[in-house]
Amino acid sequence: MNAEPQPPTATPDIEAAVRDLAHARKLWREAHHRLQEPGPRELPSRERIAQIVEGLRGALFPMRLGPADLRLENENRYVALTLDTVLSELTVQVGLELAWDARHRGVPPPGAGEAGAVVAAFAASLGEIRRLLDTDVTAAFRADPAARSVDEVLICYPGIQAVINHRIANRLYRLGVPLIARLVAELAHSATGIDIHPGATIGEEFFIDHGTGVVIGATAIIGDRVQLFQAVTLGAKSFPTDQDGRAIKGLPRHPIVEDDVVIYSGATVLGRVTVGRGAILGGSVWVTEDVAPGTLVSQARARSV
Amino acid sequence: MNAEPQPPTATPDIEAAVRDLAHARKLWREAHHRLQEPGPRELPSRERIAQIVEGLRGALFPMRLGPADLRLENENRYVALTLDTVLSELTVQVGLELAWDARHRGVPPPGAGEAGAVVAAFAASLGEIRRLLDTDVTAAFRADPAARSVDEVLICYPGIQAVINHRIANRLYRLGVPLIARLVAELAHSATGIDIHPGATIGEEFFIDHGTGVVIGATAIIGDRVQLFQAVTLGAKSFPTDQDGRAIKGLPRHPIVEDDVVIYSGATVLGRVTVGRGAILGGSVWVTEDVAPGTLVSQARARSV
Amino acid sequence: MNAEPQPPTATPDIEAAVRDLAHARKLWREAHHRLQEPGPRELPSRERIAQIVEGLRGALFPMRLGPADLRLENENRYVALTLDTVLSELTVQVGLELAWDARHRGVPPPGAGEAGAVVAAFAASLGEIRRLLDTDVTAAFRADPAARSVDEVLICYPGIQAVINHRIANRLYRLGVPLIARLVAELAHSATGIDIHPGATIGEEFFIDHGTGVVIGATAIIGDRVQLFQAVTLGAKSFPTDQDGRAIKGLPRHPIVEDDVVIYSGATVLGRVTVGRGAILGGSVWVTEDVAPGTLVSQARARSV
Amino acid sequence: MNAEPQPPTATPDIEAAVRDLAHARKLWREAHHRLQEPGPRELPSRERIAQIVEGLRGALFPMRLGPADLRLENENRYVALTLDTVLSELTVQVGLELAWDARHRGVPPPGAGEAGAVVAAFAASLGEIRRLLDTDVTAAFRADPAARSVDEVLICYPGIQAVINHRIANRLYRLGVPLIARLVAELAHSATGIDIHPGATIGEEFFIDHGTGVVIGATAIIGDRVQLFQAVTLGAKSFPTDQDGRAIKGLPRHPIVEDDVVIYSGATVLGRVTVGRGAILGGSVWVTEDVAPGTLVSQARARSV
Amino acid sequence: MNAEPQPPTATPDIEAAVRDLAHARKLWREAHHRLQEPGPRELPSRERIAQIVEGLRGALFPMRLGPADLRLENENRYVALTLDTVLSELTVQVGLELAWDARHRGVPPPGAGEAGAVVAAFAASLGEIRRLLDTDVTAAFRADPAARSVDEVLICYPGIQAVINHRIANRLYRLGVPLIARLVAELAHSATGIDIHPGATIGEEFFIDHGTGVVIGATAIIGDRVQLFQAVTLGAKSFPTDQDGRAIKGLPRHPIVEDDVVIYSGATVLGRVTVGRGAILGGSVWVTEDVAPGTLVSQARARSV
Amino acid sequence: MNAEPQPPTATPDIEAAVRDLAHARKLWREAHHRLQEPGPRELPSRERIAQIVEGLRGALFPMRLGPADLRLENENRYVALTLDTVLSELTVQVGLELAWDARHRGVPPPGAGEAGAVVAAFAASLGEIRRLLDTDVTAAFRADPAARSVDEVLICYPGIQAVINHRIANRLYRLGVPLIARLVAELAHSATGIDIHPGATIGEEFFIDHGTGVVIGATAIIGDRVQLFQAVTLGAKSFPTDQDGRAIKGLPRHPIVEDDVVIYSGATVLGRVTVGRGAILGGSVWVTEDVAPGTLVSQARARSV
Repeated sequence: MNAEPQPPTATPDIEAAVRDLAHARKLWREAHHRLQEPGPRELPSRERIAQIVEGLRGALFPMRLGPADLRLENENRYVALTLDTVLSELTVQVGLELAWDARHRGVPPPGAGEAGAVVAAFAASLGEIRRLLDTDVTAAFRADPAARSVDEVLICYPGIQAVINHRIANRLYRLGVPLIARLVAELAHSATGIDIHPGATIGEEFFIDHGTGVVIGATAIIGDRVQLFQAVTLGAKSFPTDQDGRAIKGLPRHPIVEDDVVIYSGATVLGRVTVGRGAILGGSVWVTEDVAPGTLVSQARARSV
Repeated sequence: MNAEPQPPTATPDIEAAVRDLAHARKLWREAHHRLQEPGPRELPSRERIAQIVEGLRGALFPMRLGPADLRLENENRYVALTLDTVLSELTVQVGLELAWDARHRGVPPPGAGEAGAVVAAFAASLGEIRRLLDTDVTAAFRADPAARSVDEVLICYPGIQAVINHRIANRLYRLGVPLIARLVAELAHSATGIDIHPGATIGEEFFIDHGTGVVIGATAIIGDRVQLFQAVTLGAKSFPTDQDGRAIKGLPRHPIVEDDVVIYSGATVLGRVTVGRGAILGGSVWVTEDVAPGTLVSQARARSV
Repeated sequence: MNAEPQPPTATPDIEAAVRDLAHARKLWREAHHRLQEPGPRELPSRERIAQIVEGLRGALFPMRLGPADLRLENENRYVALTLDTVLSELTVQVGLELAWDARHRGVPPPGAGEAGAVVAAFAASLGEIRRLLDTDVTAAFRADPAARSVDEVLICYPGIQAVINHRIANRLYRLGVPLIARLVAELAHSATGIDIHPGATIGEEFFIDHGTGVVIGATAIIGDRVQLFQAVTLGAKSFPTDQDGRAIKGLPRHPIVEDDVVIYSGATVLGRVTVGRGAILGGSVWVTEDVAPGTLVSQARARSV
Repeated sequence: MNAEPQPPTATPDIEAAVRDLAHARKLWREAHHRLQEPGPRELPSRERIAQIVEGLRGALFPMRLGPADLRLENENRYVALTLDTVLSELTVQVGLELAWDARHRGVPPPGAGEAGAVVAAFAASLGEIRRLLDTDVTAAFRADPAARSVDEVLICYPGIQAVINHRIANRLYRLGVPLIARLVAELAHSATGIDIHPGATIGEEFFIDHGTGVVIGATAIIGDRVQLFQAVTLGAKSFPTDQDGRAIKGLPRHPIVEDDVVIYSGATVLGRVTVGRGAILGGSVWVTEDVAPGTLVSQARARSV
Repeated sequence: MNAEPQPPTATPDIEAAVRDLAHARKLWREAHHRLQEPGPRELPSRERIAQIVEGLRGALFPMRLGPADLRLENENRYVALTLDTVLSELTVQVGLELAWDARHRGVPPPGAGEAGAVVAAFAASLGEIRRLLDTDVTAAFRADPAARSVDEVLICYPGIQAVINHRIANRLYRLGVPLIARLVAELAHSATGIDIHPGATIGEEFFIDHGTGVVIGATAIIGDRVQLFQAVTLGAKSFPTDQDGRAIKGLPRHPIVEDDVVIYSGATVLGRVTVGRGAILGGSVWVTEDVAPGTLVSQARARSV
Repeated sequence: MNAEPQPPTATPDIEAAVRDLAHARKLWREAHHRLQEPGPRELPSRERIAQIVEGLRGALFPMRLGPADLRLENENRYVALTLDTVLSELTVQVGLELAWDARHRGVPPPGAGEAGAVVAAFAASLGEIRRLLDTDVTAAFRADPAARSVDEVLICYPGIQAVINHRIANRLYRLGVPLIARLVAELAHSATGIDIHPGATIGEEFFIDHGTGVVIGATAIIGDRVQLFQAVTLGAKSFPTDQDGRAIKGLPRHPIVEDDVVIYSGATVLGRVTVGRGAILGGSVWVTEDVAPGTLVSQARARSV
C-alpha cells in the first residue's frame, strides 16, 4: 500500500517534489501514449459550464431565478441578453469538446460550423425545456404536503434544481456533447446529492422528493408522472466485460419505469427490467425483475429482538 | 416525451428562443392566473439568506466560526456589529416573505412593524439557540470516538453544521416565515446531505453522525439525547389527497422519537408512530409501527449463496 | 425543549442579544474550564485548507485540474510555483494545529521546525500520491461503461474527487495533523456526499461509483482493486464507553476489505470483520460477520403483495 | 503644531485610542450641535455613485463603453436593463440627499415622490446628454492631430471622460442634488486631474486636451466650440466674506468664455470677466480683465541669463 | 446650450429614454456612415490592457512588483508563466486592433500571423526595456535627495510608474498598435497625472520628479540623462489644419531635448525647437525658440505691490 | 537610444524573453552587489498599506467614511474592531520596513518589540490626528463658497482626502518608517494629484482647494490657517551634490510658510525662504526670496498683441 513518508527534514524540498511529480506524469503518459500532448488545456471548463448553467436557469425562469431587481416588462430583454452571452460561451465549450473528441478518436477535427449547429439546436429546444419544467414544478407542488406555492418549490427544492440541470444536460447529451452534459449533471449532483446520468430519458411531471442519494443510470427510461424519494437507485445489475476486463459500453442496462409509478426511499431497481404503469415500490425494496402494472411491492418486515 | 431538436442551423436563433420562452411563460401564467404579476421580484433571496446565516454562525460562535483574527476581548463588539448588520438585512427579507405571503393568500399586506417584530423575537431567542447548540456540541464529542475536542467537532462536523442551521430555521419557522426557514434548511442540506425540515421539533443533545441522506420530516418530534446516523429517514407513510389529487397539508404525519433513542444508518421510520424512550433501531430497519421503550429492533440477516 | 419566543417588540434588542450570547459563552467556558482562552483564533482555517487543497490538486494534475491556459512546457514551472505558495501556507496551518494540540493536551508547545518537518515529509510523498491516484483513475475508467476517457473521469467523477482528497488527507493524518486531515476530508464530503475518514487505509486502483452516502470509518483497511457503489457503509458496530459514557477512542472497529472485493450500493458492513479476497456484497446487504474469500452475499428478496 | 508622540509601549493600547477618538468626536459634535445624530449614515455613497456613473456611461455609448461582447441588435435591450437598475439605485441616492438636505436646513422631509421626480427628469434628458457628447467627441477628433478615429477618442481621452461625467453632473446639479453631482465630478477629477464644478455651464463641441490640472469654477459659462489645454484655470479672483469670515455663497464669480475661444496650457482667467468670441489665450497667461473678441493674448517672454 | 429638463413626472420613463438614446445613436451613425456596424465590440479593452500591463510590470521586476511571497529561486518560473499568460492575451488584443484598423481604413483584414509577429517582436525587446528602466531607477535615486534606496524608488515613485508604462507603450507604438499603446499611456496618466504620448522618444536615465501635470507630445525627442519636474509641457505650438478644419496629422511638432537637460516645474516648451545639451530651463519659463547648449533660462521675476 | 525590435517571428519566444530578463537582473544585481538577496519579498506592500489607510479613515470618521449602515451607538465597537485588525497588519508592515532598513544599512535586525512600539505610539496619536483633521474640515467649509456643509467637504473634497493621508503619513514618518509613510502619501497623490512629502510639517486649519498639481517638499514648514490652491509648489531651488553627483540628503531646503498665508494657483516658492505671516501670493508667481509678513505678491501682467 502507501509508501512510508520520508524522514522529516527542516523545510519542504520543492525541487524534489517537482521532479517526483514530473516523473509520475511521464510514466502515466508513456502508459497512455500521450507524450505529444499539444498546447493548452483542451477540455471544457467546469467553472465555465457552471456559469452557463446559471445563466440558463435565469433565462428559463427570469422572475424567480434571474436577477433580484428584474421587472416584468424587462423579462424578454433580460432573456435575450443572457442567452446572447451564455450561448456564445457555450459554443466555445462545445467546440472544445468536439475537437477533443475528434483528437481522442483519431478522426479529423470538426468543421467550422459544427459547434454553432449544436448550440443552435439547443437554443431551439429551450421553449420545450421550459414547458417540461413547468410540468415538473406543478407535480412537485401537488405532491408535497409541505409546499405552499409553486414559487417556493422553484427556489427551495433540490429535486427541481436537479431536474432543471437534467433537462439541459439531456438535450446536450443527445446533441453530441456528453462530456459537457456530464459536467452539468455533476454540478447538480454536488449541490443536491441527486445523480442523474444525462443520458437518462425522463417524461413529464417528474418529481424527486428530498433526493439525496438518488442514482439514475444512463439508459434508464422514465415515463410521465413518476415520483421518486431519496436514495432510490435505478441502476445496472452487472455488465459484460471485454477480454481486457473493460466494461462494454452502450448496452441498455437500466430499468424502464412506466407512467404513474411511485418509488419510495431507498428502493433499488437493477437491470433492464420494467416497472409497470402505476406500480408502487415500497421503501428499501430490492427489485431485479419486472414488476407488473399496478403492483405494490414492499419489503420484508424488520423484527424486534 | 421530449420533442425532437430542430434541424441544426449555423448560429443560434436567439430571437426565436426568446419568443419560445415568452410563450411558455405566458401559458404558465394563464394557467396560474398571474398575468398581472407586479414589479420587481418579491421573494426572499437565497444569496442574502446565505449571508445572514453566515453572520449568525459567527455571532453564535465568535471565536470558532467568526473572523480568524478576532481576539477574546473583542467578542462582544464583533457580536454586536454583526447582529446589527445581519438582523437589519433579515428584517428586509422577512418583510419580503410577509408581503409575498399576503399577496399569495389575497389578504391585506402586513403592517409596518410586523417584520421588525418577527426579527425582534428571533433576536431574543439567540441566547437560547446558543445554549441548545452547546448541548449538541457536547453530545457529538461524547459520542464519536474519533473526536479529539469540542473545537474539532464545531469546525469539522457536518452534523453540527446542519443542526446550527436547523435551530435557526426552526425558530424562524415558528415565528411565521417558513420560506426563509426552508432556505436556511436547504443551505445545510446542500452542504451536508442532511435534510431536516424546519418544522421538525428537536430536543437537547442531538447528534447526527456522518449524516448524508438523513431526512427528517416537518411534523417529526425528537426528544433529548437522540442520536442518528447517516441515511436515516423519519418520514411520512402516505398522505390523504383532496379531490384534485393534491396532498392535504398540515396533518401530523412523521414519527415521534422519544428521549435517548439511537437510530443506526439507513433505518427508515414512517408515519405518526412513536419510538419509545431508549429504543435502539438497527441499521437499515424498516419501521412503520410503534416501538416500545427500550426495544432493540434489528433487520433480517443477509444470506450467502 | 425550545423555550417559547419572547413577545414581539418593535425592533430587535441587539444589546440584550449580545448580553444573552455573552452569558451563554460564559457558561460554556466555565463548564469547560477555558476562562483564560488567549489571543486570536488558534485553529486551522477551513477556507485556507480549501485553497491549499485546490492548489495541490492543480500541482498533482496540472494539465487537467490546473489553470485552463497552462501549456505543457510550463508544467514544471507551474507545479513549482504552486507548491511554493501552497506548502508555505500549509506550514502555517500545521503550526496552528500543533500549537493548539499541545495547548489542548497541556504539553509544551512544538519546536520551531516541527511544522516544517511535517510539511517536508508531506512534500516528499507527493510523487507517490500521484502514482496512486493514477491507478485510481485507470480503475474508474475500466469499471464504468459510461466513461469514454480518463480525462472525463478526472474532471467529472465525484469518486475521483473524493479519493484525491483522501490520499492527501490520509498522508497528513499519518504525519500527525488529524484536524487538518479531517477538514480536507470534509471538503470532499460536502462536495460529493462521500465521507471517508482520513485515518482509513486504502490500496491501489480504488473506485467509488456515484458515491453519495458512502461512509468509510477511521480504522477501515481496504486492499487493492476494491470497488464500492453509492451508500455503502464500512462502519463500527458499537463501541465500548468509559465510565463517563464517552466512547473509548483508538480501537480497531471498522472492517477489513481484502483485494478485489466489490460492494454494491447500500450495503452495510459493520465491525472489525474481514471481507475476504474477491468477495461480492450485493446491494443493501447487512454484514456483521466475516465473509469468506470469493463469497457472493445477496439480500433477501422483496415480496409483492 | 502636532503634539509629540507618546513614549513607545510594547503593544498598541486600542482601548485608549478608542476613547481618544470618541472624545474627539464628542468635542466636534458639541461644537456643531449634532449630539442627536440619528440612525444609519444618511449621505449618498461614493461607491454607489461610481457604479451608477459606470452604468450611465454604458447606456450612453453601449457599443464603446458597454460590455465587451454586446452585439448591435441588443443595444436597446442592454440600455433598457441598465437604465432600469441604475435609475432605481439613483432614486435611492437622490432620496438620501434630499432627506439629508432637509434635515440640514431644518425643513420638513421631502415628499414621497420627490426623488422619483428628480430621476424622471434626469432620464428625460439622457438623449440630449448623448447628443451633446457626440458634438464633444467630434470636436476632439477634429482638434487633435494624434487622433486616428472617434472610437479612439471615446475610449482613450481623459478630456472625454471628464466631459461625460460633467454633462451628467451638471444635469443632476440643476435638478437639485448638488452633492451627488459633486461626487460625479470628483470621480472624474480623481481619474483625469480635470476639476469641473458641476455648476459650470458648457456649450457644444467642448474639448479639453491632456487636461491634468484644469479647474473650472461653479459659475463659469462656456460657449460653443471652446477648446482648453492642460492646467487652465477658470477661477474666482476673490470673494467677499461675511462677518464670520465665511465666504458668501452663490454669487457669479467665474469667467464667461464665449464661442470659439482657445485657451492654451497653464492660462489663468480669474473673476467674472468675459473672454470674447474667438479670442486666443496663450499658454500660462494671467487674465483678470475682459478680453475683446478675436484678441490674441500671450505672455511676456522668458529671458536667457 | 443645454435643453431645459422636462417637467418632473412620478417615475423615470425608461422606454422614452431608450428611444431617445437609440435616436441619438442613429443620428450619429448616419453622420458617420456606420449603419452597418457589425457584430460584437471590435476594440481592445481597457481592462484587459490594464491586466496585461500589471503582468508585464511583475515580469520586469519580479521581486519588487511581482507577488509578495515570491522567492528568488522561483523568479524565472514566475516570469515564464506570467509572460505566457500575458503575451497570449496581448496577442488577442493586438489582433483586435489590427482588424479594427484594417476595417477603419478599408483595407483587407490582417493575415493570420500578424498579431503573433507583433507580440513576438515585443517579447524580444523585453530585456532591453528592463535594461533601460534600470537606468531610469538609478537616475531617480541619484537625483532625489529624499530617496533612501532604489527599492523605495521602484515601489513609490510615480515618475517610475509612468516611465515603465511609457517604455512598454513606446515599443508597442513602434510595432504598429498605437491604440493599445495609448491605453497603456493613459493608465499611467490617470494614476500619476503624467501624460507621455506613446510616440515620444526618450533616452536613458530619464527622471520625472513629482510629475503631476507633465505633458510630452507625440513627436518629442528626449536625450539621455534628462530630468523633468512637475507640470512641464513639451508641446506643439500650433498645427496647420486642412480645408475641413481638421488638424494635419503626423508632422514633427514637439521639442527636441538634448542630453543632460534639466527642466524645472511648470516650464513650457512649444514647437519643434531644440533645447541644447546641458541647458537648464527654470520653473514656469515659456520657450518657443531654440535654446543653445548650456544655457540657463529663467523667468521674469514676480513683483511685490 | 532604444534598440531596434527583432525581425518578427510567428510566436513570442518566451524562453528567450525569460533569459533576457534574467540576464538584465543579473547585471543589475552585480552592479548593486545584491547577488545574495534572500527569501521572499522583504518590502512593505502597497496593497496592504492601502487597506490599512482605508481602515484608519473609517476609524477616524466612522459615520462618514466607515460602513454605510453603521449606527451611532455602534461607533466605538466599529472603531475598536477596525483598529484591532488595522494596527495588527500595520505592525507586520512596520516590521518589514524596519528589517529591510536594517539589512540595507548593514546594522543588526530590529528587536522583537520594535515594530509594536512604533504602532503603539501611532495608536496613541490617533485622537490628536482626528482633532487636527477637524480643524482642516472646518477651514475648508469656511473657505469655499461652493461648500454647503462639513459633511460634503468630508466625503467630496480631494484636499481633505490628501490631508487625512498626510496627517497619518507624517506621524509614521516621525516614528521612523518613512517608506510606509511615503506609500501613504503616494496613495493620496495618485487619487488627488496632491503631492505632499510625509516629512512636511503642517499646522492646523490647513486647506488645499482643487489641489491638482500641488507639491510640498520634505522639509517644508507650514503654519496655522494656511490656504493653498491648485498647482502650488513649495519646492527646493537646487541642492548640492556629492562627488558622485548624488544629491546630499537631509538639509532644510523647502520654504517656511507662516500662519494665515494664502497662496493662489500655480504659484511657485523655492528654497529655504520664509513667507511671512498673513502674506498673499498671487496666482503663478515665482518666489525665491523671503516675503515680508502681510505682503501681497502678484505677477507681471500678460499683454495683448
